[in-house]
Amino acid sequence: MTEPAPVFASGVDNERLNAQLRFLLEADKLKRVLRRNLLVDGSRRENSAEHSWHLALSARTFAEYAPEGTDIDRVTEMLVVHDIVEIDAGDTFVFDQVNAETQAERERAAADRLFPLLPEDQAARARELWEEFEAGATPEARFARAVDRLAPMLANWHNEGGTWLRFGVTRTEVMAKVKLISEGSEALGSYATALVDDADRRGYFRN
Amino acid sequence: MTEPAPVFASGVDNERLNAQLRFLLEADKLKRVLRRNLLVDGSRRENSAEHSWHLALSARTFAEYAPEGTDIDRVTEMLVVHDIVEIDAGDTFVFDQVNAETQAERERAAADRLFPLLPEDQAARARELWEEFEAGATPEARFARAVDRLAPMLANWHNEGGTWLRFGVTRTEVMAKVKLISEGSEALGSYATALVDDADRRGYFRN
Repeated sequence: MTEPAPVFASGVDNERLNAQLRFLLEADKLKRVLRRNLLVDGSRRENSAEHSWHLALSARTFAEYAPEGTDIDRVTEMLVVHDIVEIDAGDTFVFDQVNAETQAERERAAADRLFPLLPEDQAARARELWEEFEAGATPEARFARAVDRLAPMLANWHNEGGTWLRFGVTRTEVMAKVKLISEGSEALGSYATALVDDADRRGYFRN
Repeated sequence: MTEPAPVFASGVDNERLNAQLRFLLEADKLKRVLRRNLLVDGSRRENSAEHSWHLALSARTFAEYAPEGTDIDRVTEMLVVHDIVEIDAGDTFVFDQVNAETQAERERAAADRLFPLLPEDQAARARELWEEFEAGATPEARFARAVDRLAPMLANWHNEGGTWLRFGVTRTEVMAKVKLISEGSEALGSYATALVDDADRRGYFRN
């Protein structure tokens, strides 16, 4: 844990501010959590912080493909906080069935430690957004998840198969993720389907 | 320029979608733009994409320190797009007066190339947000700039002087940035002032 500087700001509730700083200093560690997939240009693995940024940008850019009435500001906020639990739990590769079994438990423990660094009202809000994302029961959460699922597909296509080829993923396994994209956005689901068809023709999946 | 996959998604305006994809694939390059400052843990230099994510998170966490009526959703959106011009223009160190002279011109050229990758309506929106940030004439832009200025100060304090010591920055130069923070948020300005006082006592500035 990185403690905030021992300074006193005048005219501010310093206890509250220090809780916020403690959370933000800890959140900085998300920049060191590596995902399996590469950047689009293939130069290195992506980290979860820069991934979260690109998702926020993607959600806004693709806003018109969300079901009518979807609150894109809430989607953005959700995407900004949704990966913070990976600071403790690490990134779980989307096709890793062994670690997927313990993922929920590890992420819950991470949420229990990380969000309460914030003042109570803000901790509750962050937790709520993360749980909403995980449950995928609202249009906002389903759209956020669609954008999150599409991103590594784009990176894989542009890396000539990327993690699909490297870790021997089948078309059937990928199509299960495409289904989740379609649940959040018909248009993005349609695009993901076309992308997977093309990737299949190019031999990017394990037979 | 990375071209989107040559695929056709049914039920979608593919020309429009491809323009959006072209922009998002290009935006991915922000992950490779390095800033001068280190991560809070000092392990490596920060890139502009992960920096933008941390700013979005900080703006929401510090929302209560923005002047009443500030639209934090707009601040968040602004912070998500504000550094994209660095893909072409590079990051200009905040105390680099030589490159600061050409910075505005380089960034304008970058904006002229990058935002029009998007469909026209979205390009106009992104350009407007970037120009609003640069002009700093609205409460949203001033608050976004305050959060952006505070971030490297935190990183420097936690790296025992960081870029201040490394590049021989004086207290007077840093106080000019603190003034900008105060213009966006009285509370964050007060905190930045206390932080600089403490950094000065620790010998983190050039005399």
